[in-house]
Amino acid sequence: MNAYIKNQIELFKEKNKNRGCLLVSCPDQPGIVAAISQFLFSYNANIIESSQYSTNPEGGTFFIRIEFECPNLKEKAKEMENQFAEIVEQFSMEWNFTHVYHVKKAAIFVSKELHCLLELLWEWQSGDLMTNIALVISNHETAKEVVEGLNIPFYYVPANKDIRGQAETTQLKLLKEYEIDFVVLARYMQILSPKFVEENPNKIINIHHSFLPAFVGARPYERAFDRGVKLIGATSHYVTNDLDEGPIIEQDISRVDHHDNVDSLKKIGRRIERSVLARAVKWHIEDRIIVHQNKTIVF
Amino acid sequence: MNAYIKNQIELFKEKNKNRGCLLVSCPDQPGIVAAISQFLFSYNANIIESSQYSTNPEGGTFFIRIEFECPNLKEKAKEMENQFAEIVEQFSMEWNFTHVYHVKKAAIFVSKELHCLLELLWEWQSGDLMTNIALVISNHETAKEVVEGLNIPFYYVPANKDIRGQAETTQLKLLKEYEIDFVVLARYMQILSPKFVEENPNKIINIHHSFLPAFVGARPYERAFDRGVKLIGATSHYVTNDLDEGPIIEQDISRVDHHDNVDSLKKIGRRIERSVLARAVKWHIEDRIIVHQNKTIVF
Amino acid sequence: MNAYIKNQIELFKEKNKNRGCLLVSCPDQPGIVAAISQFLFSYNANIIESSQYSTNPEGGTFFIRIEFECPNLKEKAKEMENQFAEIVEQFSMEWNFTHVYHVKKAAIFVSKELHCLLELLWEWQSGDLMTNIALVISNHETAKEVVEGLNIPFYYVPANKDIRGQAETTQLKLLKEYEIDFVVLARYMQILSPKFVEENPNKIINIHHSFLPAFVGARPYERAFDRGVKLIGATSHYVTNDLDEGPIIEQDISRVDHHDNVDSLKKIGRRIERSVLARAVKWHIEDRIIVHQNKTIVF
Amino acid sequence: MNAYIKNQIELFKEKNKNRGCLLVSCPDQPGIVAAISQFLFSYNANIIESSQYSTNPEGGTFFIRIEFECPNLKEKAKEMENQFAEIVEQFSMEWNFTHVYHVKKAAIFVSKELHCLLELLWEWQSGDLMTNIALVISNHETAKEVVEGLNIPFYYVPANKDIRGQAETTQLKLLKEYEIDFVVLARYMQILSPKFVEENPNKIINIHHSFLPAFVGARPYERAFDRGVKLIGATSHYVTNDLDEGPIIEQDISRVDHHDNVDSLKKIGRRIERSVLARAVKWHIEDRIIVHQNKTIVF
Repeated sequence: MNAYIKNQIELFKEKNKNRGCLLVSCPDQPGIVAAISQFLFSYNANIIESSQYSTNPEGGTFFIRIEFECPNLKEKAKEMENQFAEIVEQFSMEWNFTHVYHVKKAAIFVSKELHCLLELLWEWQSGDLMTNIALVISNHETAKEVVEGLNIPFYYVPANKDIRGQAETTQLKLLKEYEIDFVVLARYMQILSPKFVEENPNKIINIHHSFLPAFVGARPYERAFDRGVKLIGATSHYVTNDLDEGPIIEQDISRVDHHDNVDSLKKIGRRIERSVLARAVKWHIEDRIIVHQNKTIVF
Repeated sequence: MNAYIKNQIELFKEKNKNRGCLLVSCPDQPGIVAAISQFLFSYNANIIESSQYSTNPEGGTFFIRIEFECPNLKEKAKEMENQFAEIVEQFSMEWNFTHVYHVKKAAIFVSKELHCLLELLWEWQSGDLMTNIALVISNHETAKEVVEGLNIPFYYVPANKDIRGQAETTQLKLLKEYEIDFVVLARYMQILSPKFVEENPNKIINIHHSFLPAFVGARPYERAFDRGVKLIGATSHYVTNDLDEGPIIEQDISRVDHHDNVDSLKKIGRRIERSVLARAVKWHIEDRIIVHQNKTIVF
Repeated sequence: MNAYIKNQIELFKEKNKNRGCLLVSCPDQPGIVAAISQFLFSYNANIIESSQYSTNPEGGTFFIRIEFECPNLKEKAKEMENQFAEIVEQFSMEWNFTHVYHVKKAAIFVSKELHCLLELLWEWQSGDLMTNIALVISNHETAKEVVEGLNIPFYYVPANKDIRGQAETTQLKLLKEYEIDFVVLARYMQILSPKFVEENPNKIINIHHSFLPAFVGARPYERAFDRGVKLIGATSHYVTNDLDEGPIIEQDISRVDHHDNVDSLKKIGRRIERSVLARAVKWHIEDRIIVHQNKTIVF
Repeated sequence: MNAYIKNQIELFKEKNKNRGCLLVSCPDQPGIVAAISQFLFSYNANIIESSQYSTNPEGGTFFIRIEFECPNLKEKAKEMENQFAEIVEQFSMEWNFTHVYHVKKAAIFVSKELHCLLELLWEWQSGDLMTNIALVISNHETAKEVVEGLNIPFYYVPANKDIRGQAETTQLKLLKEYEIDFVVLARYMQILSPKFVEENPNKIINIHHSFLPAFVGARPYERAFDRGVKLIGATSHYVTNDLDEGPIIEQDISRVDHHDNVDSLKKIGRRIERSVLARAVKWHIEDRIIVHQNKTIVF
């Protein structure tokens, strides 16, 4: 990592040393917000941003994301977590308490098409993607030069159907070695095994080059061309073991017309893929996404 | 039809009495534009608008739409068509020569949801849809009041799976009686028989309430909700005998999020359906659409 | 008002008899959410939807909108308001406590172009705009037939620069007589006097036919054409005494190109105006808008 | 320039060695298309793409862009230009005959914000921007490393109000030395003198960081924030001596809301600026733009 980005990250950590984030889901009932906000106030925490949603106020599931500023958070964090257990039990909560200063470590997987990787690297270099891109793994050497030029470790791990097991063993070892928090498939054109996916639930973000659920699977631009659609799209989603069926995080589209051939669809599509994936990754690292019943709530 | 609209149509016909439109497709080769434009010039016609497209300049198919102003067009039209036959033969053209002053006659089919019908009626009343809405046919009586309020004949023709044949006999008879040029299915929730469709090739415009090819078939909003998409859409297409597989004319989408339930998806969707269908109908009546290999070229 | 809509409104009121909404703004500090949510919980109210925003957690202004379901709200409302006074004082709040079952009464002002009026009437008829359109006032008689056809009182009040005072006296009298909560200027092409505006702060919603602050004032489509813009827009805002300078509620745009003349810009623009105004009115009647320093927070 | 791009350009030139482009404007009258297409056909040229537009068929101005494939174009070009003179005279045409294989030479001017420059470099590297980026000129050294890393000459030319004359002398000398066809101001934060602009009519493309004509001049994001707009935009235009008043080539917008502060408006805006400028440059190098009365026709 170069000095500028290291410095950016240090500044971010210092600026957010007292910033915490609480993600909660539980059966909806009166009193949840009162309990949580009273709890935070008892630690003198100021709520900076709060979003909530209920699938149904009567018998549904309640979700909330609260970002707060709490003096001396590091010192208090342990005690807060312990104390919060009481509320967790009372409301049967699933919850996640994160420190904003903990900058997540990412691994990016890529194949030969580099546009999504380049977009992430760029947003990262300009300080708009506050993550630690710890390594890039590819089954091709195309990205090697640009990645290493930014002082990011690059690993060439050959992969295809026949050597999947072996490749994933290497990949998983690297993820552990670098203590990776999440994986981005930035146009990585290999299918991951169920084992790999299950070890990383809601931690692998993929970009699919179509407006899902249209054109699930291979060659979506070719099929979009054949169908004569007037809009093409891209979809970012968490990877599950059902191909292209994981929880959708973000989608966008662009208008096309009869002049466009497969090549120009791909060019137009690249721009959509880049921005859709960048948004999804941003929301993931800011802990804005809750997965519920194979759908996402994005706060 | 009320007096205002009758008057609008008369004004339009007078204004466009010398306006013609030529739609041509043929194997691409040098000289096509030269031949057509020379032909038009020989009748002192001024080209007002011209759009062309070739699937491939080498061995592909060439398409052109030319709108022109020709003094005394009505008198010359017969002769022009005859003379044009020579060029047609030379270039193996498929072609269509229309008079803009010939205002097309439309039949609108609708069921219980009226938003698409209302949009068409509205655009029509404001003079933005230069067609003659000759009748409305419905398998429900919901639309009766509003349609008859505009002095448009309304026919209640009960229809469902069991009485399809009988219903379609009545419907086809009405289409003939009113000399209908094209049919708009403005959320008509019945499937048409192959016979009905084959009698009206590229003359039946449907609005499907999804971003095709996603959610082909019934209950698209419910399925969009279940899949957790972040955008919903609507598609207007010509009806063929493959359900929701006909040539796409126009599509559009709108952004949704986790707050939206099936009802709000439907509300948001109604706005998209209205505008997508209105645009498709407008392009159809202006002879802007060529169908080629189950896709549309929209000039 | 016709029977169907009356019925819709009654159903809505019954369904929302226990639904309340609290809009609060105050200097930001820890404990605000805790205090409000604790207060609501003490009345056994369940928070259905909550949105908040702070201009700056350090020394800024805090805003929150809370929609809640509270058993027997009507009986408790008076006491709740009284009790809430304590919190109001503690945090120096400005606040507004509304009952969702109280359906707001609207007056629509219109001139000769009816598209915005028709959109509102339509949304209203389909139950998507839960307001009571109590009367329509116009300086032309164009809208009379359609308005009275829906059993809405229509008042023709001639208005122009020279008789503004007299016209506004009549208009204000009507607003009082019908106990109007807010006014929609649906392409009402008259300027209102400072007196009229001051009597209705943040209660008059206008649609301006440009993407403000571009093309403030008259003839925006003509000026957009002259400038050769590639997008045209519309803006809905609250009316203040600075022409077209009031707080912006909503904006949208549509793409245009060199083919478009002033007429087609107007046609395209009508569609934008319709949807932008409809959204602004919807948010207003749902108490989603807070005005702060000539800007809007839309929750 | 690196070997890959050099190779891309050579491939492009080879592929387009017989591709020509004709841009014509003249008073509208019958026979223009016939004359031009007959002329092209006489050289056995096949029209690949053709777009036309008339401000008014009666007494207006007619514009056409024709892209054609002509065997042995290089050998015939001189003669074709000579022969075309006859038609030019007959119809009082202004015209421009270009060879697609002639790849235009560009100079990019930039200051400290690099996002627009990076976008252009990226599109260029991926072969989507078929131009020869001959040099980059900046009044800061920020871009030096990235530009020289791509083997593009970088010139640091200090510039500010006080030394404008001196700076422009150096810049104009460089433009001549490198035989530059057009200049891109990719967030170059200096005003150019009338002399500089007049020497390069319709050859300087600027990106302005607002939806013109809103927020002409300095600090548009700050002013957009103060006004509370709900959409922000960017505008690419040819530079004239009226600040931000030159012919608009392309515009686009993105939605924002009350959460956005000036910083986030700038972040969102960067994405719009990048794509708007890239499209404008692409259309310029493909000879798709005709300037007429301070507006653009983009074919």
